[in-house]
Amino acid sequence: MTWSEQLQQYIEAKKPDRVFILTDSNVAPLFSTPDGAGRMIVPAGEASKSVERLCDVWRWLEESGATRRSLLVNVGGGMVSDLGGMAAGTYKRGICHVNVPTTLLAMADAAIGGKTGIDFNGLKNEVGLFKMPERVIVDPAWLDTLSQPEMLNGFAEVVKSAMLGSEEEYHKACAQPVTLSGASIDSLAEWSAHFKEDVVASDPRERGLRRILNLGHTAGHAFESLAATCGETVPHGTAVAHGLLVSLILSHELEGFDAKGVDRYADSILSRYPALPKCALEVDKLLKLMAADKKNPSYGMVAFVLLESVGKPVECVIVPGWKIKSALEDYISRVQ
Amino acid sequence: MTWSEQLQQYIEAKKPDRVFILTDSNVAPLFSTPDGAGRMIVPAGEASKSVERLCDVWRWLEESGATRRSLLVNVGGGMVSDLGGMAAGTYKRGICHVNVPTTLLAMADAAIGGKTGIDFNGLKNEVGLFKMPERVIVDPAWLDTLSQPEMLNGFAEVVKSAMLGSEEEYHKACAQPVTLSGASIDSLAEWSAHFKEDVVASDPRERGLRRILNLGHTAGHAFESLAATCGETVPHGTAVAHGLLVSLILSHELEGFDAKGVDRYADSILSRYPALPKCALEVDKLLKLMAADKKNPSYGMVAFVLLESVGKPVECVIVPGWKIKSALEDYISRVQ
Repeated sequence: MTWSEQLQQYIEAKKPDRVFILTDSNVAPLFSTPDGAGRMIVPAGEASKSVERLCDVWRWLEESGATRRSLLVNVGGGMVSDLGGMAAGTYKRGICHVNVPTTLLAMADAAIGGKTGIDFNGLKNEVGLFKMPERVIVDPAWLDTLSQPEMLNGFAEVVKSAMLGSEEEYHKACAQPVTLSGASIDSLAEWSAHFKEDVVASDPRERGLRRILNLGHTAGHAFESLAATCGETVPHGTAVAHGLLVSLILSHELEGFDAKGVDRYADSILSRYPALPKCALEVDKLLKLMAADKKNPSYGMVAFVLLESVGKPVECVIVPGWKIKSALEDYISRVQ
Repeated sequence: MTWSEQLQQYIEAKKPDRVFILTDSNVAPLFSTPDGAGRMIVPAGEASKSVERLCDVWRWLEESGATRRSLLVNVGGGMVSDLGGMAAGTYKRGICHVNVPTTLLAMADAAIGGKTGIDFNGLKNEVGLFKMPERVIVDPAWLDTLSQPEMLNGFAEVVKSAMLGSEEEYHKACAQPVTLSGASIDSLAEWSAHFKEDVVASDPRERGLRRILNLGHTAGHAFESLAATCGETVPHGTAVAHGLLVSLILSHELEGFDAKGVDRYADSILSRYPALPKCALEVDKLLKLMAADKKNPSYGMVAFVLLESVGKPVECVIVPGWKIKSALEDYISRVQ
């Protein structure tokens, strides 16, 4: 079934009094609004995750007569589901929402699990809330609308989930053709969505198991932030792909992850991604950024998700600074 | 125990990494900030329930280094707990918060139950979320800091709870001296707080029982809104006190509430309150406002909480427009 048929079915079952579609300027031309639904288009791009845009969405809902029994449908990538999810979670103290992810990244990650939010004061996802979507409608047909960089951006999260969950799926990821396509990745994309749904269902508030989803993100976020301070934008997927290599190096050091597995990752997965800008590779600055990560158990203690092997994550490993440093140096020597 | 001793005990038990106190310009001079805690003072008054002020609170938390393990303590009336609760619910997707209500209104109502929010686009509490405080610390000593109008403002909610819950407590409310004082009302204030906590605990998301707390508010909110359109500010308690009389008239008509009970309310309770401005008594406009109330089961159907007798609420009575109209006319003839 197409996403719009699935949405129609959902609407017939749940009977919201009105339906509102939030989308962005890239996605809006790709579909027609269902009869009778309202529509708002925000500018594509991370800059729309702002207080100003959130107020625009609230105002639009209010002025279009949305009630507590209305439904907000977020059709787009992670920006749309983050912004729309926060709007749905706060408009009249919460209305129902459904996410229709249109990017691989959103299917594998952003649209699932109820983390919503906007950027604030220069910090990513600084304010937001947990607001579970009533449903996530995954339609791999959207994948055919994506460019290669967009595919790669989501592929890193797909690979991450596969590493955490299943040797079989990880093997499929490694075996993807050089040019990623909807046809080759559709079942893996659906598997990733279900994998994340399952992990989240067992730990909606990120108090335990869910933290494994942070694999690759401790170093990944530090790469992203450091690059931003020198004016470079590193796509999330690229940052995570590099962060995953750092995690595997540490996993080899501390958890006995197979050395050949580290090489396999570098050859089959990371080789697809561009290098990070030089300015994002300063070890001391990276360490400082990792120490400030809000996911650490307390300030200055750096916690990593590591792997014993593919499919066997270890949730919260506190790694001393000097070991992180040597892993980062090892990583840099591999990618240079 | 004083509220600050209770807070100290809570902090020692829960060990937040930092403590932040949000208060307003009226309350700030009345207490000293605990050692080591941060403090922010917002201007007193409903105008602080704004997006701009919410951003100020987020920025203050961020720039003071608040983490997910920090605690926000809202010391003040309903504005402070509404604004601070929303900030705590959204800062880094949610940090713990404790409310210390300093008004009778906040003790009996606003600080309890997890409804948070700000005004938006000219509408009260238009955006917000359900975010339960970790604790509500009720210290009747604050009551001695209140003026009579502030006492009366909260007294209406105390009376409402007593009507819903207990003939014994309602009797205590009716027997209060003309000049309300902390000494005479302290145990009733604590009872009200516990009553609301119990109702909310059984229905945190307002899907059923909790709706009884809306007694008196259907007409009350309409009085408040209509007065506002002609530039008059009616205190919430005054509006609810008048709204309760409308509910009792309807309760007599539809649920067999004793006629003497209606008189008793008018004589012992409503007589303490100022009259509503003339412009707030236009029956057709009031009806329209009630039809638009977001708590109605669907648009245009007006739902009331009524009473069979004190202590016996009936949760969701759909009342046809002509009956509401005649009840409003009856109410007007009584108060004029």
